[in-house]
Amino acid sequence: MLDLGEIRKNIDGIDRQLVSLFEERMRLTSQVAEYKIETGKKVLDPERERQKLEAIKSLVEKEDNKHPIADLFSQIMANSRKGQYMLLEKMGQTLREPYEAVDEIKKEGAKVVYQGVAGAYAYAAMLDYFGEDVDNFNVPTWKDAMEAVKEGKADYAVLPIENSTTGSITAVYDLLQEYNNYIVAEVYVKVEHVLMGLKGTDLSKVTTVYSHAQGLTQCESFLESHKDWQQISQPNTAVAAKKIFEDKDNSHVAIASKEAAKLYGLEILKTDIADEANNTTRFVIVSKTRTFVKNAKKTSIVFECVNEPGSLYNLLSHIIYNGLNMTKIESRPIEGRQWEFRFFVDIEGNINDQRVMNALRGIEEESRSIRLLGNY
Amino acid sequence: MLDLGEIRKNIDGIDRQLVSLFEERMRLTSQVAEYKIETGKKVLDPERERQKLEAIKSLVEKEDNKHPIADLFSQIMANSRKGQYMLLEKMGQTLREPYEAVDEIKKEGAKVVYQGVAGAYAYAAMLDYFGEDVDNFNVPTWKDAMEAVKEGKADYAVLPIENSTTGSITAVYDLLQEYNNYIVAEVYVKVEHVLMGLKGTDLSKVTTVYSHAQGLTQCESFLESHKDWQQISQPNTAVAAKKIFEDKDNSHVAIASKEAAKLYGLEILKTDIADEANNTTRFVIVSKTRTFVKNAKKTSIVFECVNEPGSLYNLLSHIIYNGLNMTKIESRPIEGRQWEFRFFVDIEGNINDQRVMNALRGIEEESRSIRLLGNY
Repeated sequence: MLDLGEIRKNIDGIDRQLVSLFEERMRLTSQVAEYKIETGKKVLDPERERQKLEAIKSLVEKEDNKHPIADLFSQIMANSRKGQYMLLEKMGQTLREPYEAVDEIKKEGAKVVYQGVAGAYAYAAMLDYFGEDVDNFNVPTWKDAMEAVKEGKADYAVLPIENSTTGSITAVYDLLQEYNNYIVAEVYVKVEHVLMGLKGTDLSKVTTVYSHAQGLTQCESFLESHKDWQQISQPNTAVAAKKIFEDKDNSHVAIASKEAAKLYGLEILKTDIADEANNTTRFVIVSKTRTFVKNAKKTSIVFECVNEPGSLYNLLSHIIYNGLNMTKIESRPIEGRQWEFRFFVDIEGNINDQRVMNALRGIEEESRSIRLLGNY
Repeated sequence: MLDLGEIRKNIDGIDRQLVSLFEERMRLTSQVAEYKIETGKKVLDPERERQKLEAIKSLVEKEDNKHPIADLFSQIMANSRKGQYMLLEKMGQTLREPYEAVDEIKKEGAKVVYQGVAGAYAYAAMLDYFGEDVDNFNVPTWKDAMEAVKEGKADYAVLPIENSTTGSITAVYDLLQEYNNYIVAEVYVKVEHVLMGLKGTDLSKVTTVYSHAQGLTQCESFLESHKDWQQISQPNTAVAAKKIFEDKDNSHVAIASKEAAKLYGLEILKTDIADEANNTTRFVIVSKTRTFVKNAKKTSIVFECVNEPGSLYNLLSHIIYNGLNMTKIESRPIEGRQWEFRFFVDIEGNINDQRVMNALRGIEEESRSIRLLGNY
């Protein structure tokens, strides 16, 4: 029988030697970093790293150990690069663009755009963030809202980005990539779908249900018991309610918010029809200017990996190494490239936080591209 | 001025000592693994690892080095666990369920279900994989197709999972999670959307366009120039074409495949209307039985992380450490848990490949749950 205590004591002895060698190695690599900064050389030198790994493998005696030890040295070199990025940031050699830090986002006198009509969930999100008296207008599509911000017709746009039941709203992610606008805040709105129709609607005579495609998906179980109803998707849930009000056809019903039913004088035929009782949509407030609140807690970025095995993992390592929590990762196809992806990542932290700076610096150096989407 | 050559020579000297210490450490940890296997203890012991990291930190002299060195030791211990999982796999202590390995998927006499109607892209995918003479039937929803396979009414279902322009079809990912069916093959179908209507349709008099929601999204730029058209989404593109044929209203048009236009005797009004010329949909062939082809090249899994910072990164490390390429990662909300996610990952490799086995074993041990979705 093996003596576990004895083995662990031997491991502890080895670890003491490893720690002291690591410290000496770090002292030396920080000298390399200084040299690179003085001479303006790039931190990442893939050819030198490849050669180093080959040299390491030739030193390993046991064949089975070659791969795990080469892997450890990849990690030692990656950590060494991270240390060098940190040094560059400390010395002020930052690649980041400046931004304006404010105590709070200016709401007074702001003009706000949202997609849809009054009574839509985006409308509720807007009132929640900007207050009841906000100067606002609406547009037919999310793209129109982004365009209004870009052209200065609105100071802010309110866009849904994620629902707790149905997941990411990928079209909005694509618009964040397409436009150079920034996320400056987020709002969570509880979604409570109800079924509505004209006063006196007989459920057994209904032929058609209108809602937003997401609304139909979120009430899938309820709609399974009404398979004979034709499902027609509308630009948003409030438009669906408005349609019932305008068409005056009592064989048509809509799935939308209680507020929409009230707004269009419709009768609520059934409540609690969503598959999940706790259904929340996260909305983002988007602006053209790089103005972020000083106490921002979340950083959103989008990046593209170089097309190599393990490159996504390598980029994520900058986030983890800096002790940051990643709250979201979303992949979207890159237009014009078949089966290549860009990644949208949310990190807990302020861009002024040293750890976030270091992570962004590392990703910036080792990705094909990175863009800051917001800090809020 | 620093002498780069001299510094690098010193680093090389340290690395020689590190390699030999790593080899000795690995010899000792493989003894720990043997002990754990003999005594039936779990490989991952979070409390012991936490204590070890505290001990390491107290050995580090320079304050700034504490975090990077503790991080390296986390990686050394993670690598050591991976070595132990490998040993467990080699000794036959595998947690994997058995499966039937075949030379090829049996197509003769197979009954196949697809969602939609004849002429839909899923129909084309089915004919492509199973041949023109396949015994088949169709159902209204993807869920119905999954259900038909579960109940044995069909041997295989054909389901779209991803489009090169619009990205993942998340509803199908959710169904893969919901049902215990397996992916046994995949087929790529080129999507060529055309605009169609009744013979003699005048484009200037069109009021309404029918298609699948994805079809409408994929032709967004074209539809931007027809903002006055009402967009109505249908269960799939072929149903949209069928509707034009049945309604006999020449103010209505549909976006669907050339095959659908032919099937319903409609006139092609405009070709090349999709935003991206290279638009391909990936379909999966789903079965109830764990029967995989011997030369399968792709492994699909779904797993849930424990809710801790860095746990996704840790699970992905098993894939990378084993030298495997990850071709896809998709996150979806976990029902009943707000803002928690499960991850669908595709890996290049056969589940019989030692590297894939080791990666799955590691994820199995360190995730909340993992399920094999297919090998094809």
